[in-house]
Amino acid sequence: MALIGPSLMCADMGNLQDSVLTLDQAGVDFFHIDVMDGKFVPNFTLGPDLIKRLREFTEKSFDIHLMVEKPEDFLNLFIESGADMISVHAEATNHLQRTLQTIKDRGLKAGVAINPATSIQDIEYVLDVVDYITVMTVNPGFAGQKFVPLMNKKLADLTYLINENGYKIDIQVDGNIGYETIPDVLKNGANMLVCGTSSLFKPNLSLELAVSKLRNFIEDIEVNKSIKL
Amino acid sequence: MALIGPSLMCADMGNLQDSVLTLDQAGVDFFHIDVMDGKFVPNFTLGPDLIKRLREFTEKSFDIHLMVEKPEDFLNLFIESGADMISVHAEATNHLQRTLQTIKDRGLKAGVAINPATSIQDIEYVLDVVDYITVMTVNPGFAGQKFVPLMNKKLADLTYLINENGYKIDIQVDGNIGYETIPDVLKNGANMLVCGTSSLFKPNLSLELAVSKLRNFIEDIEVNKSIKL
Amino acid sequence: MALIGPSLMCADMGNLQDSVLTLDQAGVDFFHIDVMDGKFVPNFTLGPDLIKRLREFTEKSFDIHLMVEKPEDFLNLFIESGADMISVHAEATNHLQRTLQTIKDRGLKAGVAINPATSIQDIEYVLDVVDYITVMTVNPGFAGQKFVPLMNKKLADLTYLINENGYKIDIQVDGNIGYETIPDVLKNGANMLVCGTSSLFKPNLSLELAVSKLRNFIEDIEVNKSIKL
Amino acid sequence: MALIGPSLMCADMGNLQDSVLTLDQAGVDFFHIDVMDGKFVPNFTLGPDLIKRLREFTEKSFDIHLMVEKPEDFLNLFIESGADMISVHAEATNHLQRTLQTIKDRGLKAGVAINPATSIQDIEYVLDVVDYITVMTVNPGFAGQKFVPLMNKKLADLTYLINENGYKIDIQVDGNIGYETIPDVLKNGANMLVCGTSSLFKPNLSLELAVSKLRNFIEDIEVNKSIKL
Amino acid sequence: MALIGPSLMCADMGNLQDSVLTLDQAGVDFFHIDVMDGKFVPNFTLGPDLIKRLREFTEKSFDIHLMVEKPEDFLNLFIESGADMISVHAEATNHLQRTLQTIKDRGLKAGVAINPATSIQDIEYVLDVVDYITVMTVNPGFAGQKFVPLMNKKLADLTYLINENGYKIDIQVDGNIGYETIPDVLKNGANMLVCGTSSLFKPNLSLELAVSKLRNFIEDIEVNKSIKL
Amino acid sequence: MALIGPSLMCADMGNLQDSVLTLDQAGVDFFHIDVMDGKFVPNFTLGPDLIKRLREFTEKSFDIHLMVEKPEDFLNLFIESGADMISVHAEATNHLQRTLQTIKDRGLKAGVAINPATSIQDIEYVLDVVDYITVMTVNPGFAGQKFVPLMNKKLADLTYLINENGYKIDIQVDGNIGYETIPDVLKNGANMLVCGTSSLFKPNLSLELAVSKLRNFIEDIEVNKSIKL
Repeated sequence: MALIGPSLMCADMGNLQDSVLTLDQAGVDFFHIDVMDGKFVPNFTLGPDLIKRLREFTEKSFDIHLMVEKPEDFLNLFIESGADMISVHAEATNHLQRTLQTIKDRGLKAGVAINPATSIQDIEYVLDVVDYITVMTVNPGFAGQKFVPLMNKKLADLTYLINENGYKIDIQVDGNIGYETIPDVLKNGANMLVCGTSSLFKPNLSLELAVSKLRNFIEDIEVNKSIKL
Repeated sequence: MALIGPSLMCADMGNLQDSVLTLDQAGVDFFHIDVMDGKFVPNFTLGPDLIKRLREFTEKSFDIHLMVEKPEDFLNLFIESGADMISVHAEATNHLQRTLQTIKDRGLKAGVAINPATSIQDIEYVLDVVDYITVMTVNPGFAGQKFVPLMNKKLADLTYLINENGYKIDIQVDGNIGYETIPDVLKNGANMLVCGTSSLFKPNLSLELAVSKLRNFIEDIEVNKSIKL
Repeated sequence: MALIGPSLMCADMGNLQDSVLTLDQAGVDFFHIDVMDGKFVPNFTLGPDLIKRLREFTEKSFDIHLMVEKPEDFLNLFIESGADMISVHAEATNHLQRTLQTIKDRGLKAGVAINPATSIQDIEYVLDVVDYITVMTVNPGFAGQKFVPLMNKKLADLTYLINENGYKIDIQVDGNIGYETIPDVLKNGANMLVCGTSSLFKPNLSLELAVSKLRNFIEDIEVNKSIKL
Repeated sequence: MALIGPSLMCADMGNLQDSVLTLDQAGVDFFHIDVMDGKFVPNFTLGPDLIKRLREFTEKSFDIHLMVEKPEDFLNLFIESGADMISVHAEATNHLQRTLQTIKDRGLKAGVAINPATSIQDIEYVLDVVDYITVMTVNPGFAGQKFVPLMNKKLADLTYLINENGYKIDIQVDGNIGYETIPDVLKNGANMLVCGTSSLFKPNLSLELAVSKLRNFIEDIEVNKSIKL
Repeated sequence: MALIGPSLMCADMGNLQDSVLTLDQAGVDFFHIDVMDGKFVPNFTLGPDLIKRLREFTEKSFDIHLMVEKPEDFLNLFIESGADMISVHAEATNHLQRTLQTIKDRGLKAGVAINPATSIQDIEYVLDVVDYITVMTVNPGFAGQKFVPLMNKKLADLTYLINENGYKIDIQVDGNIGYETIPDVLKNGANMLVCGTSSLFKPNLSLELAVSKLRNFIEDIEVNKSIKL
Repeated sequence: MALIGPSLMCADMGNLQDSVLTLDQAGVDFFHIDVMDGKFVPNFTLGPDLIKRLREFTEKSFDIHLMVEKPEDFLNLFIESGADMISVHAEATNHLQRTLQTIKDRGLKAGVAINPATSIQDIEYVLDVVDYITVMTVNPGFAGQKFVPLMNKKLADLTYLINENGYKIDIQVDGNIGYETIPDVLKNGANMLVCGTSSLFKPNLSLELAVSKLRNFIEDIEVNKSIKL
């Protein structure tokens, strides 16, 4: 079943310990944590000290999404702060294979993230070293962006490329993942959902209820999909 | 009397709302918030969304220390998130005068920060547009660094330069400011203390007690200084 | 019929007002204006103040070709100076989709330009947000370069890609577009011709005659093409 | 007597040939031409092709002000387009001495330009290879900026430094140079005035009259200065 | 038959003249010389003065592999030092076509190198101007790296792409090319082997013997391949 | 007595082992080794593997002169290859104090190098952590440049600054140091001479004789200086 990973950038930033504890108990599958450098994307979010602190409150996987230039320079910093998974952007480094290999060699899951405009051909020769691919379904850098419709085609193309070559790789979607967009991304092969203000973090809805409601919604889609098959 | 500003980077990152509320009531004078881009300094801390959230819990000044390249590109982001004061590094921009002038024109206090190696001559022609100067007393980028001894001479040189030209500018010190270093930095002219793990944030000491103990320590030094005069 | 757009870089730079008025009356379809930053290409041409001034003398479209790094930082500058169309280079930004979307959202036509070596796969996932694609048929940066022969194959490949996916996108060619190269580029799908020293701006030929001669030449080719079909 | 140099950026960009011819006959002393790269300053103006064209219409000196990063990479381009004088920014290159020496070795006058915040200490060791120093009296990048008051002190400091060391160097001022600011800059040692919208290019005033009015104004000040001495 | 090119980076750096003379007589086909800038790859090797000196001791081709950003800025430096072939990285320049064309126009063989993660689509439109393609079979920057297995698929894909389009282009492999990896890379189309510590430079084996042993090994494989066909 | 350090860049690059052995026995005091990145200076020389190899042939100090941007990123590489002293350029890093402190903390001598245009004020606040200062007496990047005359004034200014503050710091001069320039640089306080083609490496003169001739020349000057005192 598709995994649910709350985007910490969308949680209550003044009480992250509480948010992490609550989400952990509500049964999320992983925590998605965005790091920004003001260069690769024109914004800033959080860093290794905060991650290290939150690490104390959950055993669930920390998925660090490095929206930074030259991510290879920062792997140590985040591995030591408690990352279980690290994704780097294909657009951000000339040494994508070495960067991904290094992440795997250190015992973490390695992910490659691609911006909306980026071709899937650009990651064809790293498919053997990635555990997951993050398809940006909005332009990265800010919360609250609009889903880019052509990304459903990219998901389908990517699913085809992966299956055709016999790989076993998770497909993560990140950006405006909510009740309107989830049916299509699931249909096109996504199985890791980064969930922010479009699904989990909503006014007048507890995190517990939000997670369980979302879980049910996904299950229904997947059951129907199976039935159709 | 010298002002006390806790460095949020050193607070409990999982409970920043609590830390801000407690520090506010304990009577700190301002909050010092470090922003890093992984380029100007090889680390990351926090960003505008977190600042905007914490803004709700105190009326005290938010002093944003931009340890980023080309800070002029990010002024809006931080002004809109609730900054009252912004300092930029002299080493980080070719357009220091315009950047500082822009901060003032927007109604904030403008500060210029200088790394340990940077000459005070480099800021001589912006003294008329700055409200405060941040003398880095450690190398920026990480908590827990060692005080650079020659910075006491720089503080004295800077105090002389300011007075000689008849300016009224606050001098902030940032880095390893604790009971061992405070007497000398005060003597050499500093009057805004950024306080981190060397003074305020200590295991087995409540923030309330830490603030009041520090306040008393500073008062004693200043009283003695007056008496000597 | 294929559109004719004079490259202002090739006009009489000391009398651009005259050139614009004459070309407007001679019936050109748009004006192509190159902006260079010395970084993306090692040259400089002109800027927004000049564009704003020329804007007063014609109602025809201004097509601004941004040969600059990080074009997203300069959209406002050129939109406010009177651009109707803006093209940005796929090689110049990590945020191609957002940049193109921003141009469209502001009410302009959005174009993506690609250097001779650039693959058409690199723009596959922005085809839904572009109004035109600029295929550089010479290496950008200077007037008077030689047509790169393989670009005819790229035009054919691109035309196929566009049609196969059911898009309606104009194909602009830029660089050494003259009587020798036009037949082939038209045949391969180009329908917007950027015209410089190889076709319009020639010694001993008035701009009026040059435009009308070129127009006839294109019509003949297109008529023949239709007949063959 | 102080030299008058119109800033071409402020002239009628659609009719630069006319502007140059008129200004030449009106008796200006040199032409000041700004080149921008969008990086050192966030704007673009004009390039070598335009300069080469205007070169045909006057024998007066062309003073090219390179507001670009790594100006050493572009010297050839502008020397070949007809520059007589080139100024480069001290902030824009690590190889200031070599860059200035190269300009001189090619037979041109070499100038160093400094932004408002830049210390005069930064040019102390190139004083023997510069013919003129451009003190930016506004922040560079756009026309219509406000004079930075502290620049009068910088001019005085610079005049003292030059005289103390026995050099013979012209001091150019660039930015908001008009009837209100000229008396002070002349008094503090400036002898080359870059003139834009604050003095020469004004609605309802012909360029001829503007030049002669300005010339008289300067003469009066200088005569008075001599008398006082 | 596949060509053998020793990587000088792996030779005895204190006695390169001897190494070159010995390797020349041992019958190597070309010399592969890596240049690094600390930016494109985080290491440094050697430069034009060393190449110019070694040029005196052999008539064999010098194949300069520019592992540097913006290689177009350094072509002259290496052409004048005695290069016969220059390869540049597709990832290192926005102007790949112009850079390769310049190398050819100067009378050298032009090569394009691609990192392990780089798609062969990225060089599709320069196939008509390259004499050889360097497929990095390890991540560039250091000797002693491990062969990336997926590179055999890339070699096969590339061979197919070249043949399908009717080009005649040599395929060079660079990185961990030894007795274990050579059979597969030959089978997949490589015909220029860059040989370092995995094949030629081994303790307790003279360079003469190492070359002849390697030559025999390659011949056996190629004979067998022909027989099978 | 002033120390003599041959610049390896000027030695016979094909036989560096021999050159090092000969120079060691001829009694030079240290070896000066230039590293270039093509960015800070537009050239390349040699790297850590070559240094590691030469390390085997002498016990004399290896003085590594990092003419590279962000030298802090490369300290490990050169410390591990056998450096005894490392100098970094003040113009090349925003974190000069930390970089120098790191070199010292690793047990090496730390040097700061300054380009001809650079002010000595720029290194005033690192004087307590440097063992030597390298005054570039030519513009860095290539052998065979001309001595910049004003550098004698800089040496005198620097000697004054050091003595006035009671520091004990060696002053190294680098660039066109030969029989014509040595008397003045010694007089102005230099005591470490980087010797290249202007003094040691000359056609028709053995390295042994060149060193002993130079040694005598320096001794005569220093004796005379003492006598005068």
